Formats: sequence, structure tokens, C-alpha cells
Amino acid sequence: MSLLVVGSVALDTVETPFGSVKDALGGSAIYISAAASYFTSPVRLVGVVGDDFPKEHIQFLESRQIDIDGLQIVRGKKTFRWGGKYHYDLNVRDTLFTELNVFKDFDPVIPSTYKTSSYVCLGNIDPLLQRKILRQINRPRLVVGDTMNYWIETKPAELAETMKSMDVLIVNDSEARLLTNEPNLIKAAKKIIKIGPRIVIIKKGEHGATLVTEETIFSAPAYPLENIFDPTGAGDTFAGGFIGWLARTDDISVNNLKRAVVYGSTLASFCVEKFSIESLRELSYLKVHDRFLAFMDLSRFDDER
Amino acid sequence: MSLLVVGSVALDTVETPFGSVKDALGGSAIYISAAASYFTSPVRLVGVVGDDFPKEHIQFLESRQIDIDGLQIVRGKKTFRWGGKYHYDLNVRDTLFTELNVFKDFDPVIPSTYKTSSYVCLGNIDPLLQRKILRQINRPRLVVGDTMNYWIETKPAELAETMKSMDVLIVNDSEARLLTNEPNLIKAAKKIIKIGPRIVIIKKGEHGATLVTEETIFSAPAYPLENIFDPTGAGDTFAGGFIGWLARTDDISVNNLKRAVVYGSTLASFCVEKFSIESLRELSYLKVHDRFLAFMDLSRFDDER
Repeated sequence: MSLLVVGSVALDTVETPFGSVKDALGGSAIYISAAASYFTSPVRLVGVVGDDFPKEHIQFLESRQIDIDGLQIVRGKKTFRWGGKYHYDLNVRDTLFTELNVFKDFDPVIPSTYKTSSYVCLGNIDPLLQRKILRQINRPRLVVGDTMNYWIETKPAELAETMKSMDVLIVNDSEARLLTNEPNLIKAAKKIIKIGPRIVIIKKGEHGATLVTEETIFSAPAYPLENIFDPTGAGDTFAGGFIGWLARTDDISVNNLKRAVVYGSTLASFCVEKFSIESLRELSYLKVHDRFLAFMDLSRFDDER
Repeated sequence: MSLLVVGSVALDTVETPFGSVKDALGGSAIYISAAASYFTSPVRLVGVVGDDFPKEHIQFLESRQIDIDGLQIVRGKKTFRWGGKYHYDLNVRDTLFTELNVFKDFDPVIPSTYKTSSYVCLGNIDPLLQRKILRQINRPRLVVGDTMNYWIETKPAELAETMKSMDVLIVNDSEARLLTNEPNLIKAAKKIIKIGPRIVIIKKGEHGATLVTEETIFSAPAYPLENIFDPTGAGDTFAGGFIGWLARTDDISVNNLKRAVVYGSTLASFCVEKFSIESLRELSYLKVHDRFLAFMDLSRFDDER
């Protein structure tokens, strides 16, 4: 099924204890689209870049069959840039710089060919823009949204309003706590459900992810990687794998939502093994499926006794 | 099968945002024994208290069929006392006071009736004492050990020596990182295996537990509790459930170790629902088994497609 993805497109400069990259392809829309492209087609990207955006990145998106009719290229302006540094404990990250550039005035316009998209993934952008996107399209089958501390703190009312139009909210554990002022993650998820989305996924980094609905709780561990090179984009890649799987199967039953959480975790586990989106360049459906099976073994045992 | 448990016996004063208790029964040996007593018998306790130790606590241990021949009662001295305060975010705890009292000079003597115990659980005490205990008993089938930041920092060489005699080390995530100077938990576990124990269990509090051997990694989520009243003793209760299940079944195959991790998590989930050991007074094997099944559902889905 068709999938519409909106979010940032960035050039990331990242330092980790294991190396560094400068102006590498990044941004939430990129990670989500690239991950989802392993599952479904068409993936339709909405974003904005400057005219300094390297042609090779466009070629990469095209090679993944990602539709870029909705990627605005603003002449005479620069692409959004982000710089960050990870410590030896990769859970600790400093933002070194944020140059919004074209992203500052991002006004997403949905091409007419995108308006009937069945699945929609709203990457982490201003909740007002997220809502503006939803107003431009026909009612999709499923809307997945992301957000971040910045919007929770600066635009809580707008965010709450936008959340009413989301079926699934994907946040990390600290965001869930901040959004609800509730340290217990299950209680936090249930409070979020009261605000709007009927499904909440809490990402817990190295501790996996938990899906909560009014009736169900499902926990998936993270894949036990010994060599993590760059955690950038793992959360967006999770979201892309999650909604990509749902769009592929067009099945939003609870059982398939659980499977989608494991597929999201699977894609994220590949993402962090290399810098930037490198590992999302070279996957195959078979590789993904093999790791999905390994994931299932991770929390499975023979329960007969 | 027989299980020998060594550790602290304490009177705990605990404040949480949901209430408080003063001089409640606590200590690692108590939590471990009480949890294990739901699975196996005899459970043999080794510990020390003062003559101020309330008779009702002795009666509780006896009611759980815990053998207290190895519980020294020192006349004219006071029982070990600990005081702690949990914040609204229960992951944050301040120690308010530690009065070692009789525990300061604890010199564990193993009664002759205990010497053939098949399973041994060494609660968090001085690694030199842990080793002294092992010297007093016949080679058991399985030795499970715990430790803490204090011993990792003050007696690293003694701890490393003691770890050579452990089959299983149970530590929490920050202890695993401190012990190995390695932020990646899987790498940390593998480094611990190089020191001695062939099985490492990393407890991650609200994020569950991971079992690592040279060949296997198994992750169990934590039970998603909305109402946690008192996290005190959860880790020891986990250890008690884990080794209690192994002693009950006398099966240390990898598959049964995984099952034991889930039983440990199950017992720990009951522990935190009430203050002190309250919830470990009133369990039944059936209640435990029902939650074990609920635990399995937590990370399970139908994988046919």
C-alpha cells in the first residue's frame, strides 16, 4: 500500500568514539522512507532541502524507489544541518549545532498524487505542520506520528490537538514521561491514549520497545548488538520499519501491530551498525527476514514442562 | 532440591511517594529465601541478626518452611538496619542510613546439615565471605552470586577471584558496566564470562532482564505494572525465583535457564506491588504460574504469515 512520509531532510555531522562523518544524508523523513522502502511501495516523501543538497542523495532515494515529487528544493538556500557527538556510552549525546536553514520555513505542500496515501508517517516536526499535512490528504487508513521534547515543552496544546488525529504515537521513554508527567511508562502510555492515539509505542533504546493499547501490552527486546557505531536515526528507522510492514501487509490487527514492532526493531538494529544511513543502502528483504527470526528467538523458549 | 541462601537479614525503613514502613523485614537473604520457598524445599538460610530481631519474622520464615539453623542470633547486639527513600520516579533512590550492627562482623558458619546443598545463592555480601562459604560446602550443582557497586569499587581483585567459583552472576546494568568498564551490555556480559561465571544475568529494572552465555542471549521484559509501591528487594526476589525454579526442576539446560529468568521476573513483579516482603507472604504456586503465563504473552505473537 502507499505510504506518505513527512519529516526533516538533513545533512548530519556525527562524531562517535568509533569514527565520524560530515554532511551525511540524514533527517527523519530519510530514515523513515529508506527503512519503509524495504517493505512497501510507493513510499512518498515530503520534505525540503536547499540547492546544496547533493545529487547523489537524490539518486539514492530514487534507487530505493522513493517518490520525491514532494521534496521541495529551495534555490539559493541551504539544507538543514545537524551536528552531534556521542560519548563512549552511546546513550549520551551532545548536540553540537543545529542550522535550520530551509527547514525553518518548511511549509509542506502535498502533491495531488500523494493525497490518497493509505498510510501516513508524520516524522518529528512542528505539530502545527503535522496537522496541516493531514488536512491536505484524504482520510488515510493509519496515521503514525512522532514528536520530541522540544514540541512537548514549547507547543503542548498544539501537540495535544494534533495527537487526536494520530492512530499511533511513537515516542521514547523520556518523551512519554515528559508528555504526561508520569514516571511509570505503562501509566504514561495510558495517559497518552486518553489524549488521542489509540496505540502508543514507547522506544527504550537498548532496552527495546513496548506497544500499549487499551487492551494489550507487548514488549520487544532490542537486538543484542555488540558493535553499535552510530545510533543516529534508529528511532526514525524503527518508525519506518513499523509502518512499512503495516503498509506492506495492510493489516492493522493487534497481532500484526506486534509483528510490526519487531520489524521496526529489526530495521533499527541494522541502522545503528553503520554510520548514517549506510546500512539502509544495502539491505535485502531476506536479510531483514533472517534477523526478524533471530529477534523472535531472543525472547522465546520452549514452555512445555 | 536443596538450596542454600546466604546474605543480609535486615530491618528496612523505606519511604516511597505511596507510603512508608519502619523496621520491616528485609535483606537479601530474606527476599531470596522467601521467593525460592514458593518453588523448592528445603531452603536453608545463613545470616545474622541481633536479639532485637522480632519473633514474628522468625515465625514468618518458619511458615515458609525455611530452615533457619544457619541464622545466628547475636545476644546484646542489634540487627542490621537500612533506610532508603524513593522518589516519585521510583528509579531514583537515596540511602538515608545504613547501620551495619551485627552484620559488620558477620562470619558465616555453615551448619553441617547444610553442607550438601545442591544449589547455592550467594546474596550481595563481601566477596571474601562468599568464598568462605563455598569453602565450607561440598561442590554444589550450581552457584549463583550477586554483588554490588561497593564491592566492585573496594574489592575488585577479591571479587574477581570469587567470581571464578560462580556459575551464574546476577548484576544490574550499572554494575555490569562498572565491573567491566564497558557501556555495551552484551560486551560487558561477555567480559564477565571471561572472568569466571559461564552465565551472566543483567537486571534492567523496569526494562526486564537479559541472560547471556557464550552461545545464547535471552531477553525477558519486565511485567508492565502500573502500580509499583516499593522496589526494595526486587533484584533479590528475582534471584530467589530464578534459583528456586532451577532447584525445583534440577535442570540447568539453557532452555530451563530461560524459563527460570521468567520465573525470577515473575516473583520480582509480585515483590514490588507491596511494601517490604508483604506480597511474598501470600503467594501461591498457582498465582505465580498464572503470571508466568501472562509474562509469556507479553512478548509473544502469532508469527505465521
